[in-house]
Amino acid sequence: MSETSAAAALWARYRAAEPSPSADPATLPWNEVLATVLAHKSVRSYLPTPVPPGTLELLIAAAQSAATSSNLQAWSVVAVEDPERKGRLSEFTGSQRHVRDCPLFLVWLADLARLDRIGKDHGSPLAGLDYLEVLIVAIIDAALAAQNAVVALESLGLGAVYVGAIRNRPEQVSAELGLPPLVMPVFGLCVGYPDPEHPASVKPRLPQGAVLHREQYSLDATRQPIADYDAILQDFQREQAMKPQGWIDLVRGRLETVAALKGRDRLRAALQSLGFALK
Amino acid sequence: MSETSAAAALWARYRAAEPSPSADPATLPWNEVLATVLAHKSVRSYLPTPVPPGTLELLIAAAQSAATSSNLQAWSVVAVEDPERKGRLSEFTGSQRHVRDCPLFLVWLADLARLDRIGKDHGSPLAGLDYLEVLIVAIIDAALAAQNAVVALESLGLGAVYVGAIRNRPEQVSAELGLPPLVMPVFGLCVGYPDPEHPASVKPRLPQGAVLHREQYSLDATRQPIADYDAILQDFQREQAMKPQGWIDLVRGRLETVAALKGRDRLRAALQSLGFALK
Repeated sequence: MSETSAAAALWARYRAAEPSPSADPATLPWNEVLATVLAHKSVRSYLPTPVPPGTLELLIAAAQSAATSSNLQAWSVVAVEDPERKGRLSEFTGSQRHVRDCPLFLVWLADLARLDRIGKDHGSPLAGLDYLEVLIVAIIDAALAAQNAVVALESLGLGAVYVGAIRNRPEQVSAELGLPPLVMPVFGLCVGYPDPEHPASVKPRLPQGAVLHREQYSLDATRQPIADYDAILQDFQREQAMKPQGWIDLVRGRLETVAALKGRDRLRAALQSLGFALK
Repeated sequence: MSETSAAAALWARYRAAEPSPSADPATLPWNEVLATVLAHKSVRSYLPTPVPPGTLELLIAAAQSAATSSNLQAWSVVAVEDPERKGRLSEFTGSQRHVRDCPLFLVWLADLARLDRIGKDHGSPLAGLDYLEVLIVAIIDAALAAQNAVVALESLGLGAVYVGAIRNRPEQVSAELGLPPLVMPVFGLCVGYPDPEHPASVKPRLPQGAVLHREQYSLDATRQPIADYDAILQDFQREQAMKPQGWIDLVRGRLETVAALKGRDRLRAALQSLGFALK
């Protein structure tokens, strides 16, 4: 893993002279952790090999090591290995094959139920739980935790892909997993050993000029990097024998119509039906 | 770093026989990445030493290597080093000393403005941007990216602490950073070299029985682990010469009243004033 140099890892991530044309990657610090993080690929084809005993617990320890707002630890996770349950969850997430085929499917939860019961057990309901802010705290907690688990599992040779489509039909996911009120399925995560016959690739990202601002934000500064990236992404797609689409078209296709949200336009109503007041 | 064993790292994280009394940590896989992730501490005291040239760009490359929903990359970051600006941001975040004193303060943004302009540049507004779902996508994108940066910076001997209080006064933060509409400050992140005279400690977390569920969620299964944790946390607090409070009291104190949200009860109104329709 650490045999990959900074220069090679940065090239794969940007397909351009990044972080900046003037920086010499040979002078950047480099280690096993950076190599693991920079090499991330979303894995959608898995071997049937189960995740070894003890590994899930190690990943959860990694997840729990992430920061959590005020130590509230407002997240939980359901680990699903039962093939029939994975099959049903696959149906709820747009029939994604990898949700069914991965040996371990983790559903990450923004969890206010555990906090709610503490309030009720002690005779004083927690008024804060009614607010959008606290749901956002829980979503962030869940995301920080999950990303730590992803870094950890990738260091062990496992692969993963996030499944945002878990939010297509939150009520069905909630019923399937027996979730109490005030628990939101945030995203799924397929976990398993990557199938070497269908290798994933490092996907190029926007030039840093489009995402990193100094002292103040400048929308105008992002225009040229975005145009550059549109071409970089099409080159990458051609190399992958995919139809070249470019980023601008991708963005428009995903967000132009409400129908493209695949049911997630009703997320607010779904959250209310799961007990969130969203004040 | 890798000299820390799995057993020692797990003990520091749980102060109990975790992941489970029956698991032998000596049989768990272990590497530099796991050691880095498990050793996370929130750092609130920094040396004035600046972050070395090129390091910020490396951290952003790590951040951009995180997964992003549909490759929309709906986040940005503003890097603040100007002492006066850090001072003002400190005022907006409850006068946290470390926001002022850290050499580098990163404000992570859920960014729909970049996408919005693509729609407008191409003559078709993006209807999806009006929905709560897409803001949540952007918040998750920002959190996954930031956590990758945290893991990366910790591997380089730097430390960090998340600053959720950036959401206390979103409009002021937005004005200070020159944010356009449809950009939400999600959290801040102090970055710098930890002051060895004020070392941070690994904070114990809930037993895994309170956060990890198998196949289906069980709220009842969490009661005993929570009671155990309440005692573990008080022992830790005594060891740290802090007033022992316990977790149950912490949760109640943070969430029992609307006043405890420190202004964040109006986050929804603030987001609407920043241009989010939250449909």
